[in-house]
Order: sequence, then C-alpha cells, then structure tokens
Amino acid sequence: MKWYLVAGLLTLLTSSQGILTTLSQTNGGYRYDYATIPFLAEVFKLLVSSFLLWRECRGSSPPRMTTEWKSVRLYPIPSIIYLIHNNVQFATLTYVDTSTYQIMGNLKIVTTAILFRLFLRRKLSNLQWMAIFLLSVGTTTSQVKGCGEASCDSHFSSPIQGYLLGILSACLSALAGVYTEFLMKRNNDSLYWQNIQLYTFGAIFNMGRLLLDDFRVGFERGPWWQRLFDGYSFTTWMVVLNLGSTGLLVSWLMKYADNIVKVYSTSMAMLLTMVLSVYLFNFKPTVQLFLGIIICMMSLQMYFAPAHMLVDLPVTSNAAAPQTLSEVAVQRSPKS
Amino acid sequence: MKWYLVAGLLTLLTSSQGILTTLSQTNGGYRYDYATIPFLAEVFKLLVSSFLLWRECRGSSPPRMTTEWKSVRLYPIPSIIYLIHNNVQFATLTYVDTSTYQIMGNLKIVTTAILFRLFLRRKLSNLQWMAIFLLSVGTTTSQVKGCGEASCDSHFSSPIQGYLLGILSACLSALAGVYTEFLMKRNNDSLYWQNIQLYTFGAIFNMGRLLLDDFRVGFERGPWWQRLFDGYSFTTWMVVLNLGSTGLLVSWLMKYADNIVKVYSTSMAMLLTMVLSVYLFNFKPTVQLFLGIIICMMSLQMYFAPAHMLVDLPVTSNAAAPQTLSEVAVQRSPKS
Repeated sequence: MKWYLVAGLLTLLTSSQGILTTLSQTNGGYRYDYATIPFLAEVFKLLVSSFLLWRECRGSSPPRMTTEWKSVRLYPIPSIIYLIHNNVQFATLTYVDTSTYQIMGNLKIVTTAILFRLFLRRKLSNLQWMAIFLLSVGTTTSQVKGCGEASCDSHFSSPIQGYLLGILSACLSALAGVYTEFLMKRNNDSLYWQNIQLYTFGAIFNMGRLLLDDFRVGFERGPWWQRLFDGYSFTTWMVVLNLGSTGLLVSWLMKYADNIVKVYSTSMAMLLTMVLSVYLFNFKPTVQLFLGIIICMMSLQMYFAPAHMLVDLPVTSNAAAPQTLSEVAVQRSPKS
Repeated sequence: MKWYLVAGLLTLLTSSQGILTTLSQTNGGYRYDYATIPFLAEVFKLLVSSFLLWRECRGSSPPRMTTEWKSVRLYPIPSIIYLIHNNVQFATLTYVDTSTYQIMGNLKIVTTAILFRLFLRRKLSNLQWMAIFLLSVGTTTSQVKGCGEASCDSHFSSPIQGYLLGILSACLSALAGVYTEFLMKRNNDSLYWQNIQLYTFGAIFNMGRLLLDDFRVGFERGPWWQRLFDGYSFTTWMVVLNLGSTGLLVSWLMKYADNIVKVYSTSMAMLLTMVLSVYLFNFKPTVQLFLGIIICMMSLQMYFAPAHMLVDLPVTSNAAAPQTLSEVAVQRSPKS
C-alpha cells in the first residue's frame, strides 16, 4: 500500500471524527458516557489486529514476533506518556482559555519535527524545516478568531505558567508520537503483533482511567462497565469504529511512513473539518480559513515535492522573444 | 551598490512614509493640500536626477543618452497608466469598503509576477512562484481584522463589479511597474537621463491633475500654485523628501534589480509600518500580524536563498548513533 493513500484515508477519517462526534450529540450534550469511547476503540483495534495476525500466522511465511519481556515492556510507554499528557493538558486549561490552548496546540507540529530530528536522527532540508513551520503557521492562521466572534480574549494575556504548560504539552504529545515510531521501526516484527502489544496496554490504561473516575465520584453513577453501551446510538458506534480505524492507520504510518506524514494528515484533517462545518453546521467561512488552507497546501508541496521540481527553472525556447526584450531577459536574478 | 542594500533602504523609507504622513496631520486632518505632495516629489526627483546627470556629464566617460522622439515618447506611458489606475481605484471604492480594497491590493504582488513572466519573459522556479503567492498570503494575513475591531463588514459580500475592478486595479498597478522596468532596461542609457524623462512627464501629469481638481471645484480654493506651500510644516517637507527618495530608489531597482525585488521591499515596509505603529501610535498587536510577518519572512527566504541552501540535506557524521535507532535512520522519506 502506498503511504500517501493511507495518509489521505487518515485525513478523511480524522476529519469525519469531529463531525461524527458533533452528530452523536443530542441537544448539545452527550446521552452516553464519552469517556467509554476511547476504551472501546482500543478493544476494536485489538480485535482487528488479532484477526489480522491470526490470518498472517496461517500464511506461508509466519510473522516475526519478539515475545521477550525486554521488548514487551517498551509497549506501555506510549500509554504512560499520554496519561501524563492528559494531566498536563488539564492543568494548562486552568491557566489559559480553550481558544489560546487550541492555538498553542499547533506548536506540536514543530516539537514533533524537533524530536523527530533529535531522537530518530532523521535529517530535514532547510526547505522542509520551513515547510513544517509554515504548516503550524497555516493551521494557526485558520484558527484566528474573526471579527465579531463571541470570545475575544487576548492570546497574549494569560499567566506565564499557562504558556509553559502549553509548551510541555506540545513536547509530550510529540514525544509519544516519536517514541511510537521508534517502537514500530526498531525491529522487523509483524505490525499486527506490535499493535496487539500497544493496544493491550492501551485498553488496560483506559480501563484504569475509567475506574479512577468512578472512584473520584464515589461510584455515584455505578461502575463504568454498566455504562458501557448506555445511550449508544448508531452514530456513537460509528464514532468508536472511526476512532479505532484512525488508530490502526496511525500505527501503519508509524511503521511504514513517519511522524511528519501523520502530522500533515491530521493538520489537513483539521482544515477539512472546518470546511465541512461550513456546509454541515452553517459555520461562517472566514478569510483566515481560506488563507490557512493556501498556506498549508504550499507547505505540503514544499515538504513532499521532489527538490528538482521546486528549484529548477522551466526550460522553454526563447527564440521568438522580441529583440527589445532580449536584453532584459539576460539577467535572471538581480546582481549588484 | 548592492541591490539588497537599496531594497533595504527602500523598505525603511517606504515604512517611514506612512508614519511621517500620520505625524504631518494636525488633529487627524491635513492643514496643507495633500494633493500637492506628489507634484513636489516629482520636482525633487527631477532636480536630483538633473544634478546627478550634470555630474556624470563632467566625468571622463560621458553618459549614454538617447534623445530621439521614438524613445522619448515611451516615457509618459507609466504616468498614463497611473492616471487610469487612479480612476479605477476610485471606481472600485464605490463598490467595496476600504478594508476589502486593502485586502484585494495584495493581489498586485501576484499580478506583478505574472506580467513579469509574460512581458519581460523572466523565468521563475516553482518555489519562487510559491514564494510570491505566499508573500501575498502573508501580507493579507497581517491585514485580517482581529476580533473586537470596529469594522466588521464581510469581505465576501461586495458586488461582483467591486471585485472585478479590484483585479483590474491590481493588473494596472503591475503593468505600470513592469512597463517601467522594460523602459529602464531596454537600453544602456544613463539612469539619470531616463529619470529626467520619466519625472518630467510625471510632474506634467501631476500638474494637470491639480489643475483639473481646481476646475472641478470652480477655483473656489484659488489656483493650486497658490496653495503649494500653504500650511507646510517641517514634517510636510520630510514627507516630500521621503516620497521623492523612495521614487529614486524604485527607479534604481527597476534598472539594476527588478519588480519582484521592489514588491518584496514594499511588502516588508507595510509590515514594518504596522510593527512601528504598535510602538508609536499604540496600535494593538494581533496574532495575525505576527503570523503574517513569519509567512513573509519564509517567502523572502524561499525566493532569494540559493537553491542548494534550501534543498540540500545537512551532512553530519552518524557514527555515534545508537544501534537501536540506526535502522530507523535508513529511510529518509516515506516509501510505499
């Protein structure tokens, strides 16, 4: 499978995630317990990966599987990083408003590239670095509040702790991604076997979180497993399947492509969601959204297009150029 | 003289133009007739160019000067284009508000590049085209109204005539620039001799405009020459000198650099004016301004940096890379 097809599919599914979640609400609220969704998505991914591994085992060449504890013990680490990340996120939001938090979230594009360079030692050209900065600038541009919008808090007036926690949050999110890529690529184990380990720990950590939440409120809503399918509609199940599928695609990209491809996929998905919201939910389109889309498209070209396609000058015959203009055409770039 | 020093100076002087003009106002209005300023600037440029040509004539190698009518008759054309442009501009503003007009003004960056390619047959790489689009996106981003600002008219709801006239206006502005470049570069005539021809017609057309304005209001304020130095302060004279100097620098760039350099200079000047206004006139800085500056800086790099600096991968020794990561580092870009 080509990486760009997987990346394109991830963009479509990620952008429908936001829309499905909105559609699964009733009168602006959830009739079901939203915290149960990530757990079920982990279970879904686990089932799919188990089935695919079983099919792979029946094939002519059996899949490679490392089962030593030395290897398996690395797989809960992404879950642990996400756990810390969730708490930092929560702490950040006590200092900054959601709009500022959303804007700061674009930092994770840049932090991912930095950790990608430092930890995975992958080299990027100056143009690719510029493309990555531009991607974060483009997504930020699309999110800038237009005139006349309700929330008008300045993004520059939050306490310094808020900004520092926002940076920490962006670093943790990048670390989880880069670590997962390292994990998936460090040996030639079957992707499905790696997934099973990843998602088993994912399911366990999600269960732990649900249980902890129950303890916090003194089981006043009963234990989490009794709320598991409570109030689920068809759309709720679609949200679960969608979240699970995007997770499987991300795993595939981590093994066969890289974090930067994932970052582009999810950034494009964010823009696509905003465009679809204009049609589906009557959002007012802004100049900022339009500009943000152009910027991100340029960034995409700059990062992925072959270098010669970008910097080579077009070759055309100039024989037909009028004489008076020929002198002008001599200089290509200005000289002193 | 290096073209980038001239371009830098043009940026500084163009950005001080806006600030000096604001400083020359008294209680938000002009005590002098602002329409007389461009005429005096033409006279200033004419005097400076005449002096420089006279000095050049006294030198060892006399300057080249084409005095045939066939050549001289080309020099009023920029003035004529500007005259048409002014009227189109006026017509546009009857359909769109000033904020939308300002946003549409960024189109001239793109139209200049297109006419530059078509008329002067100068080739640009794909990356340079992207840089030019990005420059116009960047300047537009910086001008997007922030939330809470007074004027909140949608930029999408003007009559179609307004947008068409805005495009025409951008084309005329680009045409004047590209034509001037053609004029300055078509032969090896002395720059000062070319300037004298250009500014003589410029001064005549400006006089004509002043006279026409007088006729329109039935000479109720007297003839324009009686208002020439009326209410001029020191700052007013600075505005004249500044406008004249930027004109001389633009002529130099048209001969020894090109229109794209000029477009970058004036775009950067626009951003610099906005930054200086934050300090001088207590303008509230916006996220958009910050993003616009980053985008334009990237565009500048993309357009002018040598190709190898942009696309080459950094060469570093990877001998110290840990074994577990070495496998990861093999792939540079994702493959299927």
